[in-house]
Amino acid sequence: MKYRGVAYYPEYWPEERWDEDIRLMTEARINTVRVGEFAWIAMEPAEGRYALDWLHRLFEKTGEAGIGVLLCTPTAAPPAWLTSNYPETLMVQEDGTRHTHGIRRHYCPTNRTYRNFCRAITAKLCEEFGAYENLVGWHLDNELGPERGRCYCEHCQAQYRAWLQGRYGSLEELNRRWQTRFWSVEFTDWAQVRMATGDRYPSIKLDTRRFQSDAYVDFAAEQTAVIREQCQGALITTNGMGPLFEPINYYDLYAMLDRASADQYFDIADMSADALACDAFRGYIPSAPWWMTETGSGALSNDKVPEAGQLRAWAYSALARGCEMWCFFRWRTALSGQEQELQGVLEYSGLPKRRYAAVKALFSELETVWPRFADLPPVRPKVGLVFDYTNDWAYRAARVGEKVQYKQHIEEIYRAFYDRNIPVEIAIPARELDNYSLVVIPSLPIVDPAFAGKLFEFVAKGGTVLSFPQLACRDPYNNYLPDEPPVGLRGLFGLRVAGGMYLRSYVGPDEALWHPKDKYTDQTPGVKLTLAGGETHATMRTWMEDIELDGGRALGVYTDNSFTGCPAVVEHHYGAGRTLYLGAYPNPDLLGWMVEEALLNTGITSLPTPQWVEVVPRGEYTFIMNHTPNPVRVPIQATEAVVGVYADGEASLAGYDVCVVR
Amino acid sequence: MKYRGVAYYPEYWPEERWDEDIRLMTEARINTVRVGEFAWIAMEPAEGRYALDWLHRLFEKTGEAGIGVLLCTPTAAPPAWLTSNYPETLMVQEDGTRHTHGIRRHYCPTNRTYRNFCRAITAKLCEEFGAYENLVGWHLDNELGPERGRCYCEHCQAQYRAWLQGRYGSLEELNRRWQTRFWSVEFTDWAQVRMATGDRYPSIKLDTRRFQSDAYVDFAAEQTAVIREQCQGALITTNGMGPLFEPINYYDLYAMLDRASADQYFDIADMSADALACDAFRGYIPSAPWWMTETGSGALSNDKVPEAGQLRAWAYSALARGCEMWCFFRWRTALSGQEQELQGVLEYSGLPKRRYAAVKALFSELETVWPRFADLPPVRPKVGLVFDYTNDWAYRAARVGEKVQYKQHIEEIYRAFYDRNIPVEIAIPARELDNYSLVVIPSLPIVDPAFAGKLFEFVAKGGTVLSFPQLACRDPYNNYLPDEPPVGLRGLFGLRVAGGMYLRSYVGPDEALWHPKDKYTDQTPGVKLTLAGGETHATMRTWMEDIELDGGRALGVYTDNSFTGCPAVVEHHYGAGRTLYLGAYPNPDLLGWMVEEALLNTGITSLPTPQWVEVVPRGEYTFIMNHTPNPVRVPIQATEAVVGVYADGEASLAGYDVCVVR
Amino acid sequence: MKYRGVAYYPEYWPEERWDEDIRLMTEARINTVRVGEFAWIAMEPAEGRYALDWLHRLFEKTGEAGIGVLLCTPTAAPPAWLTSNYPETLMVQEDGTRHTHGIRRHYCPTNRTYRNFCRAITAKLCEEFGAYENLVGWHLDNELGPERGRCYCEHCQAQYRAWLQGRYGSLEELNRRWQTRFWSVEFTDWAQVRMATGDRYPSIKLDTRRFQSDAYVDFAAEQTAVIREQCQGALITTNGMGPLFEPINYYDLYAMLDRASADQYFDIADMSADALACDAFRGYIPSAPWWMTETGSGALSNDKVPEAGQLRAWAYSALARGCEMWCFFRWRTALSGQEQELQGVLEYSGLPKRRYAAVKALFSELETVWPRFADLPPVRPKVGLVFDYTNDWAYRAARVGEKVQYKQHIEEIYRAFYDRNIPVEIAIPARELDNYSLVVIPSLPIVDPAFAGKLFEFVAKGGTVLSFPQLACRDPYNNYLPDEPPVGLRGLFGLRVAGGMYLRSYVGPDEALWHPKDKYTDQTPGVKLTLAGGETHATMRTWMEDIELDGGRALGVYTDNSFTGCPAVVEHHYGAGRTLYLGAYPNPDLLGWMVEEALLNTGITSLPTPQWVEVVPRGEYTFIMNHTPNPVRVPIQATEAVVGVYADGEASLAGYDVCVVR
Repeated sequence: MKYRGVAYYPEYWPEERWDEDIRLMTEARINTVRVGEFAWIAMEPAEGRYALDWLHRLFEKTGEAGIGVLLCTPTAAPPAWLTSNYPETLMVQEDGTRHTHGIRRHYCPTNRTYRNFCRAITAKLCEEFGAYENLVGWHLDNELGPERGRCYCEHCQAQYRAWLQGRYGSLEELNRRWQTRFWSVEFTDWAQVRMATGDRYPSIKLDTRRFQSDAYVDFAAEQTAVIREQCQGALITTNGMGPLFEPINYYDLYAMLDRASADQYFDIADMSADALACDAFRGYIPSAPWWMTETGSGALSNDKVPEAGQLRAWAYSALARGCEMWCFFRWRTALSGQEQELQGVLEYSGLPKRRYAAVKALFSELETVWPRFADLPPVRPKVGLVFDYTNDWAYRAARVGEKVQYKQHIEEIYRAFYDRNIPVEIAIPARELDNYSLVVIPSLPIVDPAFAGKLFEFVAKGGTVLSFPQLACRDPYNNYLPDEPPVGLRGLFGLRVAGGMYLRSYVGPDEALWHPKDKYTDQTPGVKLTLAGGETHATMRTWMEDIELDGGRALGVYTDNSFTGCPAVVEHHYGAGRTLYLGAYPNPDLLGWMVEEALLNTGITSLPTPQWVEVVPRGEYTFIMNHTPNPVRVPIQATEAVVGVYADGEASLAGYDVCVVR
Repeated sequence: MKYRGVAYYPEYWPEERWDEDIRLMTEARINTVRVGEFAWIAMEPAEGRYALDWLHRLFEKTGEAGIGVLLCTPTAAPPAWLTSNYPETLMVQEDGTRHTHGIRRHYCPTNRTYRNFCRAITAKLCEEFGAYENLVGWHLDNELGPERGRCYCEHCQAQYRAWLQGRYGSLEELNRRWQTRFWSVEFTDWAQVRMATGDRYPSIKLDTRRFQSDAYVDFAAEQTAVIREQCQGALITTNGMGPLFEPINYYDLYAMLDRASADQYFDIADMSADALACDAFRGYIPSAPWWMTETGSGALSNDKVPEAGQLRAWAYSALARGCEMWCFFRWRTALSGQEQELQGVLEYSGLPKRRYAAVKALFSELETVWPRFADLPPVRPKVGLVFDYTNDWAYRAARVGEKVQYKQHIEEIYRAFYDRNIPVEIAIPARELDNYSLVVIPSLPIVDPAFAGKLFEFVAKGGTVLSFPQLACRDPYNNYLPDEPPVGLRGLFGLRVAGGMYLRSYVGPDEALWHPKDKYTDQTPGVKLTLAGGETHATMRTWMEDIELDGGRALGVYTDNSFTGCPAVVEHHYGAGRTLYLGAYPNPDLLGWMVEEALLNTGITSLPTPQWVEVVPRGEYTFIMNHTPNPVRVPIQATEAVVGVYADGEASLAGYDVCVVR
Repeated sequence: MKYRGVAYYPEYWPEERWDEDIRLMTEARINTVRVGEFAWIAMEPAEGRYALDWLHRLFEKTGEAGIGVLLCTPTAAPPAWLTSNYPETLMVQEDGTRHTHGIRRHYCPTNRTYRNFCRAITAKLCEEFGAYENLVGWHLDNELGPERGRCYCEHCQAQYRAWLQGRYGSLEELNRRWQTRFWSVEFTDWAQVRMATGDRYPSIKLDTRRFQSDAYVDFAAEQTAVIREQCQGALITTNGMGPLFEPINYYDLYAMLDRASADQYFDIADMSADALACDAFRGYIPSAPWWMTETGSGALSNDKVPEAGQLRAWAYSALARGCEMWCFFRWRTALSGQEQELQGVLEYSGLPKRRYAAVKALFSELETVWPRFADLPPVRPKVGLVFDYTNDWAYRAARVGEKVQYKQHIEEIYRAFYDRNIPVEIAIPARELDNYSLVVIPSLPIVDPAFAGKLFEFVAKGGTVLSFPQLACRDPYNNYLPDEPPVGLRGLFGLRVAGGMYLRSYVGPDEALWHPKDKYTDQTPGVKLTLAGGETHATMRTWMEDIELDGGRALGVYTDNSFTGCPAVVEHHYGAGRTLYLGAYPNPDLLGWMVEEALLNTGITSLPTPQWVEVVPRGEYTFIMNHTPNPVRVPIQATEAVVGVYADGEASLAGYDVCVVR
């Protein structure tokens, strides 16, 4: 990795200790420290009184040791003097209670006073530290988003109304788009309009999510503008979460930044979701490498402490997927505070023990191999998996989201490709589809005409599209379209969706008065399939559609209830290409078969390996990571291993081992 | 059915669409639309400014098509201008937060301002539409009750105190009746008295429920008075829920109305509870047929979408039980709002598909057969099953309700008769028992002297009474009587209840400090029975009583713990009749045996059928409904089938089929 | 027992009934009534107007019958006039809502106005009743503690700040001790400091608990001072809960009182926890007998109603452990109020039935045998089990408490001794260890130097110490020490704890955004042991430490994950004694083996009996209680039985029987 880092809190530890810390860092081949994201009280101990000498000394000492600094604005945790002098800067929760001091991320992101303080401290940091040679770049805030809920203060409500006025112009238009006639919800005065969650209009909830995302993006934009003005040419980033972090549209956020950065405390139980996170972060800024700003060397985000070998296998997996910085959280375990049990690289005692040894070994190797991998060509998958924030929010805002978790649905589809070692790119509707051979569309109720046009063109030229149910059935305001889905795409898929039914429908609070929910059970009707692989049977779940063919051909038919005999899976040829449409949510078997069916004639090949043994091609190299404790042999055509052991047409990997061949 | 209807929302859909809707309705033999219950904003877009031309046009167009209108007052969903101009009309929840606009049923039912607006809109509707020939009748509000909780605003608190003053006269009397000396709760000023729920006095909680029920009944009475005055002779109804809706005393509510109307989204899993609902609604106004104002053709209140045949079987079951209107909710699935996934008869697209076809087939048949069934004699069961709102609330207000859910207890008993195809009537203590041969008393802790007198008389004349435990042990204020139960009825049952014990007693919040509740398990001690059917063993649950015989004879004795050998089931002969008393809550086997025992010498006979195959006699006809997907044959003596197939002494029914013989 | 009592509520029942009650009490050998704890409204019906004649009559009538009165101050349940005239006396919950009248324990314990009323009523009671000969003693309030939550009103917040100022002097020192630099929490004005719970600093939460305990102790101290001044020489007590009641430091509370009193509604399912409660209460005031102020004769605190024999076995178990008063809650079941289903000795009817008969039999026997046991020497166990309130609160306040419930951890260890019939004393760090042969230290992260010194001395002189993990790793402010544990005790145990890991680590709210907690599972790595009993294998859980030997010897080594081969259990000889240290939380097998190992050479012997058959030596007697329904024979060396049957070297006990031999 180019950057091998740790989060460091010099303001927390005695300054006498710094030299020893830097000595140990150097020994562990650490060349970057991430500093400052919670240090506001140390930087500005009283309103307008800055105390930055310590940070100058830190820059100097690390500079002398050849260590760069990724400097964070401290705006995630305002000091007590700020929020006690200006209580309106504190977030108000949906139940009307205002957060109090003692936590983090408890500020109102739209508050003008708070934003002014944030601009001022950012400008001050630029002024003081912008010229240091060992400044790696700027890092905004920390994990932007609603860790402490979203703000519903009256100022945010007013901002929301202003935002709506910009979007809809008039209250009449707003009522028309939200379709507020149901239950007499129609607004007759702007002052009646408020953000909504819970059991409210799906259309209102969707715009609430949009506004709240925009508020954080706008908050970040202000700091970015300050830095751009004062430190031209400096790299700017902020750390995101994932995979597929719902609260903020990361495509909007990272569009203004130079690096997308992930905080990813890998979950050993499911490497697939971790790989998806890597691919997602790579996609936020496709033209640049991405950074891992936080990952753990010990017990942090999950129950299992990683073995040293696992740390290495993960790092190689990320490297293969375009990662350029690997930064552990954190240098030393804190003695106090909410996270006193989250382990750093050093122990409470400050001594280097097991985790230090593992990090040192990893970073020494990553430093050695980096020159070979620094200039690899970008990752270029042939499979585009569609993801869209509007649809994510729409799902959550509508009742369907109680049945089909959008994120989980996408993770399941991604997993089907991950298990076959087929590289995937996250494709958002706003981008082009030219590079793909196969486009996979998870349930996507809201489809804009531009994206529909791209899909027609993509298939006409020979591409394959695999779509899941509930396609193109809603308008951009999260209301159903008064038409037969997939609206605007029926000709592409050769079918009409006449209707459909939930296999376990959600009911409102009224009915629940006498039908206890816990009596409900899911139904999993069957489907009979005639695929390339032969005839077979599978089961569906959650939602089944009533499909009428209109040019397409049924590859699968329902075998249960009143839908028996109706089409469940439809194939259609359009132009030089082909589409596949699934009329119900598939159980895992069916999902796998549909992926295999979709791969036909795309030139994309599966590479079967034992579970959690991962193969990632990148340029002339192929990276093989064994995320299991058991040794494996992977047959693969190559010339030689540049990392690990390759002989007789097989890569040989011990437990948690890595092999890179070319 | 006389009325075949749908809920229709002309104010929601473009007026250009109405003609097509009416055409499709006519084709589906729909002769009634229920209109207006959420249309306030369309009727009165600003305070005092009415806009009712659209509704006149709707009356005219439907009238021309031979379709009647059931017109609803729109008071379930006040417009935004009303609640924003008069925020005091919004309900205050128990935690002190006030509801906001964007939902329904969020008004304070006692608020004078709100009530005035309701009177005004009701009067306006009467004035404008009272004279239409195709006006079927009036429908108050929608699903009155605490969908959004009950109101605890200061105005309601004051009304509650006024209500208490009317009930008790003085604070001294209130303290005496509530017995407030425990924990020094005694009130010394009226201002100290507030509604109570949760971990409070059972006596105070009972009166809180009484008042809250009265508040809704009084709310409905105001609208009723307006309509009675302006539209003499018009039918008035309002839609209730069930079975056995707890929040409002429906006997009080429907006493002032002309039709009891049910919203019943049948639960396929348990047809018994649905049948109980039919019998309950029939009983609210015994002198008139009852209406089904809402039922579903698709996915609404439960997980399973009904087959077309199931819709038909349900409708016949209700028809046999006295139903006169069958009204689907709703004509077309709404595109927006909280219920956008609750399916109407038409699809989002407005096209008639599966559900329309099913409804059309059903209504065509119901139109054809109705003349034959229109004038059948009323249903006249020989079994009276006692139900009482005061006891329902008392149960919920006291700790016993955590053990024995009153409604579930009654449903279990009803089910024992349903399974034997024995018609049951819901008997309330205020009515006469003359028509019954058997009276069944679920746990009824509060028994007034008048009802006790009726029971003595009923048994003296030869009737049979079967009683469950916890009979006549509390006073009307939900306090235990300082005497041995069943107080006032010991002579009838030939026993004294000396004491008793919970088999899994509830403990208060204090003890729970160190005894985690999840460690508790239920005990199910045994009982040995000597019945007409022979000697057998069964188990009891929840609560067992310490019975001392006083003239009665033990048919069952406990076989477990310190109660071993004591009477558990007691038979007593009184006058020409007989009583049976169960000293503990029975498990299902025992419940069944007790029902069989109670039927002896009553002349009532069981008619065994396979599960969920239902037989309902009505006048000269017998209705047989097969609620299962499997074909069945039911041996029955009849002359001919007027619906379905009857031959060789057997009715033959396909899956979900119906047969009516005479 | 010296005192055989019932809780009696003469203010609740008609005075005409008292004579009958006293007659029945006398017949049941009751010689004590506990009176007054909820009678404030009867004692002071309006502010400053006392009405105590009824209580004088009660004293007189009971005195004539030879029955003593334990008189309670009524301060657990203020009358409505008090809290409505002075609403600031009502507790404010953490969410900011103020409690309302109608419950108990809903007052603010620091409120000056409330305290003044409490002083006044206490003084009045002393003045009126202090001279009665049949006054057994004084009882403060009822079950002091946060039954209704803790108070967070602004007055308490101010008191908390004053308390902190007393503790830390300056804000600088407070920031230094709490280590507030993390997340910029540092306080710059006293007004910013508030009590904290939930996801806040462990250091702040610990002091919040300390303050809240002190508040109740101080509340009790005010009443105590009034009584001490007015009624010199009178016994004073208050009823506590247990075992090991967390909210109030009972060592502080009982230090000022004359008797420690337990409310213990025995849990038949686990007699071990009940025995622990007895031992804990005996230890609060080691120089005096302890009292059982509340226990149940029927269904109260658990699901099972005790058999008459069980009541007797429990009472003997407590007697053997030093109990002097046995007081049932309550005389007669109340008809009204929150506890109307909690059974008293008499029925609702006021008649004496099953429970009365059991109590009468028990008290008759206890009266008869008491003279023999009245002057037994104190209980003197050789095993000291360390318990400490600061550590209890620290556990709960830190994340570790989500893994290892401190109380449950101690109960498990206690159980290992209980099962072996080895008497245990609860040892607090402030007391001496001289009487013990074995000291057992449950996880004790905070160890002060004085206690460390005692441990060194104890082992040097030949004692054995068995310690569990997480010993001496935190400072008194609940922050981790920047050193290797056990800090200050490494030389005693011959090891250093370099690090460690949770086997299921807790993660913060941020990470939980994408890693659902319900996916977590526990790991139970293995350990291989070489003990006196031979070589064996066991499993650990929750937390495992990375031990480096420094003089000690590994009796067990880890066999799993990256810790394989490292020491898990360490033995060390120091002076004439020996220590054993467990580096991970043990599963039950391992816990048992470690106890056996620790007993070697201590002279303490196990006495194996069937489960729940309990043997307690006391002076020249040995008490044997059979808490099971099955008859047992217990081989034991004795001369004769003074209660029960002893012959041929065996005590013979029927189900729930008792035998006392000497």
